[in-house]
Amino acid sequence: MSSVTQMIQTHPGRKEELERQLTETLEAASACAQVCRICADACLGEQSVDHLRTCIRTDLDCADICAATAAVLSRQAGSSPTLVQAVLEACRTACSACAAECEQHAEMHEHCRICAEACRRCEQACTDLLAALT
Amino acid sequence: MSSVTQMIQTHPGRKEELERQLTETLEAASACAQVCRICADACLGEQSVDHLRTCIRTDLDCADICAATAAVLSRQAGSSPTLVQAVLEACRTACSACAAECEQHAEMHEHCRICAEACRRCEQACTDLLAALT
Amino acid sequence: MSSVTQMIQTHPGRKEELERQLTETLEAASACAQVCRICADACLGEQSVDHLRTCIRTDLDCADICAATAAVLSRQAGSSPTLVQAVLEACRTACSACAAECEQHAEMHEHCRICAEACRRCEQACTDLLAALT
Amino acid sequence: MSSVTQMIQTHPGRKEELERQLTETLEAASACAQVCRICADACLGEQSVDHLRTCIRTDLDCADICAATAAVLSRQAGSSPTLVQAVLEACRTACSACAAECEQHAEMHEHCRICAEACRRCEQACTDLLAALT
Repeated sequence: MSSVTQMIQTHPGRKEELERQLTETLEAASACAQVCRICADACLGEQSVDHLRTCIRTDLDCADICAATAAVLSRQAGSSPTLVQAVLEACRTACSACAAECEQHAEMHEHCRICAEACRRCEQACTDLLAALT
Repeated sequence: MSSVTQMIQTHPGRKEELERQLTETLEAASACAQVCRICADACLGEQSVDHLRTCIRTDLDCADICAATAAVLSRQAGSSPTLVQAVLEACRTACSACAAECEQHAEMHEHCRICAEACRRCEQACTDLLAALT
Repeated sequence: MSSVTQMIQTHPGRKEELERQLTETLEAASACAQVCRICADACLGEQSVDHLRTCIRTDLDCADICAATAAVLSRQAGSSPTLVQAVLEACRTACSACAAECEQHAEMHEHCRICAEACRRCEQACTDLLAALT
Repeated sequence: MSSVTQMIQTHPGRKEELERQLTETLEAASACAQVCRICADACLGEQSVDHLRTCIRTDLDCADICAATAAVLSRQAGSSPTLVQAVLEACRTACSACAAECEQHAEMHEHCRICAEACRRCEQACTDLLAALT
């Protein structure tokens, strides 16, 4: 079965660029997972927790999916391209949903503003890596 | 924002069926994550570890994605349908890849045979739930 | 370096008993992680979410520690006894804290009652396994 | 029930120092989890995988425990001090075991050398935070 590494090797001259993108996406996903978990807890500490239920759930969903994505990308030498693409799609979707939710509270809560930015960075990294892999 | 719960509520008469499917998929994904982790470790303990590298990586990828899927499905009342669908797609892909890999070693290694079965059950549960959600 | 397996092998006649306990604890920790995540989300859905913040956090802490414990126990053939003991201690502590918190809401919320029971089962399994390993 | 925050608040003048240590440990644990996962996969890719089985398992144990520790520390405002201490003890033990293992292969494998350093940094951060919390 083919692998990301093999795929990379079939793109002469683009290898270093793809490795850079893999590493950037891994770091963006890992950072986003961490930031989303802190945002969930910060939301839980707000007086207005009642209005932040969806935000907390979306934060936790995004954290779990980003953490799994980072773990899969850590094994970049061995995963099947189909699997990598599917997890990148899920990560992009989760980050987009979480960013959209957090942006609604960004003016009120600084942690939501920072979280939305981390989500948008990870969403972009996943989008770029998907484009490079296909 | 819409939610799986709201989606379920718009399907009169099908609510209990969907809840049953959500629960079944959650349990299949949770069991599959556990079984894949044990299979990875069992492969690592085999004399023929050299030939089981891809199997170990695929096990670990599948474990991480199934665990994230189970976590998302635990928040079934609040996740966006788009996100649930994307994570179910990733889970189905990971389970299919891991089953295909483990099936190659199923006659040699009992743990791979059991793992392939757990992956196929989870793959089917994800496929059925995706069909029910769309 | 020594391992749980080697430790088990130095206890003649007790091997099967220890393996049974390892498996029971692995299953209790895996189930507890899942139940705690669902309890956190159920608490987040309650009208009285304001009073359930500590419960949600304790649920999430317990879920994360139980999941890590289950993962370590999946590699039962290879982990160092010191590491297994330390993670079992952390798991026992997390389960005890989460049970104590959920028991305060058990009469009001059925999910907290069920979660407290899962935590107490996992706490007991960790305690028994720790006693068997030392 | 008491909390890390409350504990911090009872140490007048030391608050900022403790918050800095919490943050440092959170970052060290998150980085260590990531590095250990990559080391496990790099070991799995080595010709000498046969001799690296213990290293792979210890890497994976350390990754799982560090990730759980980072998640608990993300909820620094709400966890019970007993639970935080127990998870820090487990994390310190896992990092110490993984560093000791990786150090044996540090001259042969650059990834083991880097991983051992990340483990030692996290071990030290946990030790310092434990000292500050008690």
